Amino acid sequence: MPLCDKETKLIDRMLEGDRAALARLITYAESRHGSLPEILKRLASSAKESYIVGITGPPGAGKSTLTNKLIKYYRDEGNKVGVLAVDPTSPFSGGAILGDRIRMHEHAMDDGVFIRSISTGGAHGGIARATNDIMRLYGAFGMDYLIVETVGVGQTELDIVRVADTVVVVLVPEAGDSVQTMKAGLMEIADIFVVNKADREGAELISAEIKQIVSINSREGAWEIPVLLTSAIRSEGIEAVLKSVEEHRMYQRDKGLLREKRERRREDAFREIVKGLVENRVADRLKEKDVSEISSRVKSGEIDPYEAAELVVSKIL
Amino acid sequence: MPLCDKETKLIDRMLEGDRAALARLITYAESRHGSLPEILKRLASSAKESYIVGITGPPGAGKSTLTNKLIKYYRDEGNKVGVLAVDPTSPFSGGAILGDRIRMHEHAMDDGVFIRSISTGGAHGGIARATNDIMRLYGAFGMDYLIVETVGVGQTELDIVRVADTVVVVLVPEAGDSVQTMKAGLMEIADIFVVNKADREGAELISAEIKQIVSINSREGAWEIPVLLTSAIRSEGIEAVLKSVEEHRMYQRDKGLLREKRERRREDAFREIVKGLVENRVADRLKEKDVSEISSRVKSGEIDPYEAAELVVSKIL
Repeated sequence: MPLCDKETKLIDRMLEGDRAALARLITYAESRHGSLPEILKRLASSAKESYIVGITGPPGAGKSTLTNKLIKYYRDEGNKVGVLAVDPTSPFSGGAILGDRIRMHEHAMDDGVFIRSISTGGAHGGIARATNDIMRLYGAFGMDYLIVETVGVGQTELDIVRVADTVVVVLVPEAGDSVQTMKAGLMEIADIFVVNKADREGAELISAEIKQIVSINSREGAWEIPVLLTSAIRSEGIEAVLKSVEEHRMYQRDKGLLREKRERRREDAFREIVKGLVENRVADRLKEKDVSEISSRVKSGEIDPYEAAELVVSKIL
Repeated sequence: MPLCDKETKLIDRMLEGDRAALARLITYAESRHGSLPEILKRLASSAKESYIVGITGPPGAGKSTLTNKLIKYYRDEGNKVGVLAVDPTSPFSGGAILGDRIRMHEHAMDDGVFIRSISTGGAHGGIARATNDIMRLYGAFGMDYLIVETVGVGQTELDIVRVADTVVVVLVPEAGDSVQTMKAGLMEIADIFVVNKADREGAELISAEIKQIVSINSREGAWEIPVLLTSAIRSEGIEAVLKSVEEHRMYQRDKGLLREKRERRREDAFREIVKGLVENRVADRLKEKDVSEISSRVKSGEIDPYEAAELVVSKIL
C-alpha cells in the first residue's frame, strides 16, 4: 500500500525531531495501522541501533521510579532516551496510567526524552509486534537508549522484555517467600537483579537468597548476574545499576553476543511481519464471495469448521 | 495429515468414555498437536452442544470453591461436567496448580466429572484456540455442562471467558474501592455477578454498588443481571447462582440468543482454524531454500525485514 501525502509528511517531520509526529506514528504502531509496514520500510535506513534496557518485576516493585532515575542519568550524559511502558490492563485493576502521566509531566519540557505507555489490552494480540515496531520508531527518532518497562505478570510480558539487550528484574523485600517459586522463569531472563526498597526489612535476606540461586546457576565464562540493592525513591544505588548495565553491554559486545542478539531480533521481526502480511491477505480473502459462502455454511452448522477451513485454505494458498 | 493407528484408537476409546484417552486428547489440544484438526473433524458429528458457564474474577475471589460447589449440584442432577481452569502462569506467582490437584482428588472416583487446568504460558499464544478445542473434546465426550474458569487479569482471560453461554463474575468485599475502575470491562461480560465471601465486612456495600451500576446500564427487555451474595466455602447461596444460570439459559433460548451465540462460536472457530492452518503452511515455506535464503539476508542486515517480508509473501500467496 503506497503512503498518502499526510503519512509521508508525518515521517519527514518525525525525522526532523518533531515529537508530535513521533507520537502519531507510535499510535499507528499501537493500533496496527495498515500503512505501518511501508512506514517502517522507509525508516529502515535512518534507524539508529539503540541500546535496549528491559525492566520487569511484580506490580509495586518500583519499576517506574527506577526507570525515572535511569532516564535522568542517561540525560545527564547527553543521551536521548525513549521509554515504553507496557501495562497489562485488566478490568480488575486500575492500571499505571496515572503514574505515566506524572512522569510525562516531569520530562515534558525535555526534547531528549519520550515516554509512552501502551496496554496489552489496547494492542490486541499483537503487543510483541507493536513493541518491536515502536522500538524501530524510537531508533529512527535517534534515541540512544530505550527502556522497555513491563509488569511481569505473564508470558506476554516476558516475551516483550526479552527483546531487550539487558534485562533488569526488580524485586522487593516482600517478594521473599515467592522467590523459590519464581526463580526458574526469572533466572532465564534476568541479566541484573535489583532488590528495590532496600531500606525495608528483609532486603538483605532476599538479596542473599537470590545470590545463592544465581551462584548455583552460574557457569564459567558466562555473565555473572549481579544482585544489587537500591532505594529508587531515595536515589540510592542507581549508579551501580547503570554501571552493571554498561558492564553487561561491554561483556556482550566483546563476546559478539550483541551482534547475535541484533541478528535474532531482525529475524524475529521478519517472521512477525510475514505473519502479519499473511493474516491481512487471508482476512481479505475471507470477505470474498466464494469464501464467505463457505463461512455462512459453517455458521448454520451445515459444514464442520475444520472441513471448511481446509477447503478455504486450499483455495487461498 | 491422515491419522495414525494410535490416534484413531485414542478417538475410539475417548468416545467409549475412556478418561485417559480424553486426557491425552486434551494434551494434544494444549500443545497444538499437528493431528488436532483431523481429530476434531472426526469428532464433529458426535459432539454434544454442552452448555458453557464461564467463571471469572480476581485472584483469591473463591472461583475454584464456587466451581466445586456447582460441579456437585450438576452431578446431583445427573449431568456430566467438564471443567477447564485457565491460569495465567507467571514467574512472579505460584499458580493454582495445587488447588487443581486437590479438586482433581475430590472427584477422582467420579466418571461424570473431568477437571483440567491449562496455563496461558503453556499453550503459547493459542490459548483461546486451545480452549475452544478442549470445549469440543468435552462435547464429544458427552459433557452436559462445561465450566471455564479464568483468573481475570488481562484481555486474554476475558477473551476466553467470552466463549461461555453464561458468564459469572465473582468479586469479594475487599474489591470494594476498585469497582468504579473496573465496571466498564466487567459490565460488558457479566451475565451474573456474585459477591463471594459474603460473611466479610463490606459485602452488602459492594453488592449495592454493583446493583446501582447494573441498574444504570439496564435496558428494557434485556437480561437483568442479578447480583448475588454467596459464601462458597460454607455452601451458602449456591442454589441462587444455579437458578440464575438456568434463568439466563432460558432467557437466551427464548430470545434465540443461544442459537446466535453458537453460530458465532462456530464462525470464530472456523476463522481460528483457517489462521492456524495458514500459519503452519507459512512456517513450512519459511524453511524452504528460496525463502530461507532471504531470511539469512535479513539476519545479516543486508535487506530490511519489511522489504524481505513483502518479497516472501508474494512468493507464498
